[in-house]
Amino acid sequence: MPSPQLVPIRRALLSVSDKTGLIDLGRRLAAAGVELLSTGGSAKALREAGIAVIEVSDVTGFPEIMDGRVKTLHPKVHGGLLGRRGTDDAVMAELGIAPIDLLVLNLYPFESTVARADCTLEQAIENIDIGGPAMLRSAAKNWNDVGVLTSPDQYDDALAEIESQGGLGRATRFRLAVAAFNNVSNYDGAISDYLSGLQLNPTQDAIAGHAAFPAQVNSRFVKLMDLRYGENPHQQAAFYRDLHPAPGTLATFRQLQGKELSFNNIADADAAWECVRSFSKPACVIVKHANPCGVAVSLEGIGRAYDLAYQTDPTSAFGGIIAFNREVDGATARAIVERQFVEVVLAPAYADDALKAFLKKGNVRVLVIPLPTEGELLHAHPGNHSKRVGSGLLIQTADLGMIDAADLKVVTRRAPSEAEVHDLIFAWKVAKFVKSNAIVYAKNRQTIGIGAGQMSRIYSARIAGIKAADEKLEVRGSVMASDAFFPFRDGIDAAADAGIRAVIQPGGSMRDAEVIAAADEHDIAMVFTGMRHFRH
Amino acid sequence: MPSPQLVPIRRALLSVSDKTGLIDLGRRLAAAGVELLSTGGSAKALREAGIAVIEVSDVTGFPEIMDGRVKTLHPKVHGGLLGRRGTDDAVMAELGIAPIDLLVLNLYPFESTVARADCTLEQAIENIDIGGPAMLRSAAKNWNDVGVLTSPDQYDDALAEIESQGGLGRATRFRLAVAAFNNVSNYDGAISDYLSGLQLNPTQDAIAGHAAFPAQVNSRFVKLMDLRYGENPHQQAAFYRDLHPAPGTLATFRQLQGKELSFNNIADADAAWECVRSFSKPACVIVKHANPCGVAVSLEGIGRAYDLAYQTDPTSAFGGIIAFNREVDGATARAIVERQFVEVVLAPAYADDALKAFLKKGNVRVLVIPLPTEGELLHAHPGNHSKRVGSGLLIQTADLGMIDAADLKVVTRRAPSEAEVHDLIFAWKVAKFVKSNAIVYAKNRQTIGIGAGQMSRIYSARIAGIKAADEKLEVRGSVMASDAFFPFRDGIDAAADAGIRAVIQPGGSMRDAEVIAAADEHDIAMVFTGMRHFRH
Repeated sequence: MPSPQLVPIRRALLSVSDKTGLIDLGRRLAAAGVELLSTGGSAKALREAGIAVIEVSDVTGFPEIMDGRVKTLHPKVHGGLLGRRGTDDAVMAELGIAPIDLLVLNLYPFESTVARADCTLEQAIENIDIGGPAMLRSAAKNWNDVGVLTSPDQYDDALAEIESQGGLGRATRFRLAVAAFNNVSNYDGAISDYLSGLQLNPTQDAIAGHAAFPAQVNSRFVKLMDLRYGENPHQQAAFYRDLHPAPGTLATFRQLQGKELSFNNIADADAAWECVRSFSKPACVIVKHANPCGVAVSLEGIGRAYDLAYQTDPTSAFGGIIAFNREVDGATARAIVERQFVEVVLAPAYADDALKAFLKKGNVRVLVIPLPTEGELLHAHPGNHSKRVGSGLLIQTADLGMIDAADLKVVTRRAPSEAEVHDLIFAWKVAKFVKSNAIVYAKNRQTIGIGAGQMSRIYSARIAGIKAADEKLEVRGSVMASDAFFPFRDGIDAAADAGIRAVIQPGGSMRDAEVIAAADEHDIAMVFTGMRHFRH
Repeated sequence: MPSPQLVPIRRALLSVSDKTGLIDLGRRLAAAGVELLSTGGSAKALREAGIAVIEVSDVTGFPEIMDGRVKTLHPKVHGGLLGRRGTDDAVMAELGIAPIDLLVLNLYPFESTVARADCTLEQAIENIDIGGPAMLRSAAKNWNDVGVLTSPDQYDDALAEIESQGGLGRATRFRLAVAAFNNVSNYDGAISDYLSGLQLNPTQDAIAGHAAFPAQVNSRFVKLMDLRYGENPHQQAAFYRDLHPAPGTLATFRQLQGKELSFNNIADADAAWECVRSFSKPACVIVKHANPCGVAVSLEGIGRAYDLAYQTDPTSAFGGIIAFNREVDGATARAIVERQFVEVVLAPAYADDALKAFLKKGNVRVLVIPLPTEGELLHAHPGNHSKRVGSGLLIQTADLGMIDAADLKVVTRRAPSEAEVHDLIFAWKVAKFVKSNAIVYAKNRQTIGIGAGQMSRIYSARIAGIKAADEKLEVRGSVMASDAFFPFRDGIDAAADAGIRAVIQPGGSMRDAEVIAAADEHDIAMVFTGMRHFRH
């Protein structure tokens, strides 16, 4: 039975948790000659607004029972939603099942209930809606003949269509049905996540705790865009966003100009953005191939920070991703477009003349990511990190570990000077975003050499030195950060040869004593963080 | 109302798509004095086996209508499932609702329907079960008083409990309820995935296509194990598996001995396994910090392949992950445990004396991953790859691109010799698994130097050379693989200086002509693959 292009809406069932727009919807539907059925709070609200509604229990002839557990689970309701017009008309007439052409229903978000710290298992279970999802699924299954609205932001368009055409078109009904099934999937996924993670007291009905990672995990993502291709041209790809993205994260970006984003653009932009956000002073981070290739902080502002970051490795900066943690001014934007080829620029804001400057290179992707307000930060849950492996998924909490000067444990005879401490913390923050094994040389809060992605630590140190020398940057007087401990003293000896004066690293090696002795021999100041930052 | 420790099972409703074990279940429940309700095919099968069943329509007093669309959506069924014993008894008695203590229901897998190439939208929609999930959700919500079985593999334990105790215990009921909600979530997630990806013909009811990436994506994973910590000790983590893992993938591993796996073990094991699987001849791959640090193929067998792989970089091989694509023999196992510290060994099988050898180092994690049969390979869908970014997810098809000798396009005056072609393809396969930018030097199917993870290609080439020299491996006569094109001729010039005789790379640079001319100048044979293998 091909679906009709237009389904006239004569009878609607309204049952909503979110009452936004309900009265207006009821009034306009009634004005369009639609008969309204309703239940509970929705019926009460409509009636109080002077809109005539029929109670569902009057339709079913069956009372609402068990404190509302059973009210719509009835063939007169589901037959009205599921009955195929043109096929089931006779049986519907015979059994007194009147067709329902429109369902307006939204579910109380289960996540909100269980997010309350004092939510008991009984409360959680009582909040699992049985009748609502069943009706949504019935209406969506029968999209051929029925429309279904699951969110107040769908009301206006649907009303406009009903008011102008007397019904809902085929494409609209299908779109709404898909939204309804997505909605139900999200609801059931949240229940599965919650219950799978519950740890119950074995003898009582009390929740003993929540597993950090539930036995089944259901991730739900909404597509932001298809991508031209994936990490490589022979791979297909798309970019998705969490249902509830945390404020200030990459996925909340808005693109102001430029070519469409590529898979690698997005991956690199995330690394650049997370790194630059970790600084409180004006900072610039340039990323290439998933690694920072230049980072700097400058009290003079982001323009100077950009100049310094660029100096670290101009070759790699070519075609890189540049991120700032301050509004980009016109001078900085002009400096970028005049100096280098850039794939993406990210910042929390742009001055008008900065945007004007970027217009001259229309291909440059300019992204704005509003920084979260303090209030938002309190409620923003940074989602877990995950890593895909063959038919599996490693899930871990995000690496939110931060240190400040007070956390540093001086392990050498010489303590770092105040300037060295600034540089050590700067280098440590950068090392956190460099692929392991990571070694960062820095001076005056500018990266001097970055050694990334090596299978043994000593090579990362050597690369940092080689790159600094190639760019004619003076290592002498720099500090060194290492994302994990030095297994042997060779890394310290090599650093001393290069002129490194202070070192920051987690500590914790079996040979820490040997490594500390090496630092003391070279009069290097070394601090331990007690925290590792592998990033592979 | 705290849940009772034991719920007697007096009445059960059976409605299954998968009839496995149904007759035995029905017979044993009947023998335990349980009254059986059923519908459709399940009722017929039970009755034919001589088991007495009551049709649900006799319970509801309402006929099954609309070709089965509406049969159980009735208060007599849902009241029987949802009624709180001790609270709702009076209303149940008044309205003639008899309690249902056990629901046995499984859903026809929606995925199977829509996986058929000729599945129409109408068939897909008709296969969306409305009554089944509603009953599952009712029974699971009321786990206090009701048991719910969703899979034949749950029958035996439940029957044993009913037969020995006359009912189902509290912990059992809760576990079954969670499984039921997980089941419903998987079902609804599959529907959402399918419908969100549909592209409809705008004027007809035909499916015009399926979007490679649906508008909403619902991932569902089952926990295999909690991990001690994540990539770093301050991160929590767990390891999950796809609902339907592809045969031969890491997630199908079995651990034969050793300490518990860590987050980094699993990530590195995946890289090692995928790399070693890409070879058809006996091969060994050693991975450290997400990169291969030594790879070799040997026609003499995996023992020799291991020796050669180890030679590339013994320092990095220390504490590495070693993977083989053949059964591990005793001599190879002994060579490993005598020579080096190893975190994980992976192989499709182990000889008995190999297992004996590993026992001497009881901490070594020994994993077996059965290789898929040819029949399994045909049906194994390698899941998509994904990469987490701030509140977002990049999803792409896996990098399954493979090349063989026939795909190579010779672009230089000199064509590679047969031996060089073997080495070029070997090096190319390795480069695919080295973090970008990746440069691999190889000779006689042994890696000679691996340059990984650099922000500019020339440094990867330099690192490969430095590492080869440090290990006193002769680069002269080697081949070079590059995971992406050379943007400039400098990479070729540097390779020639090191003694490289043949090069494999995708090609496609604006300066290919310059790069080819450089190769010709040095009498280097160069082939283009036309395929890039970035891996960040």
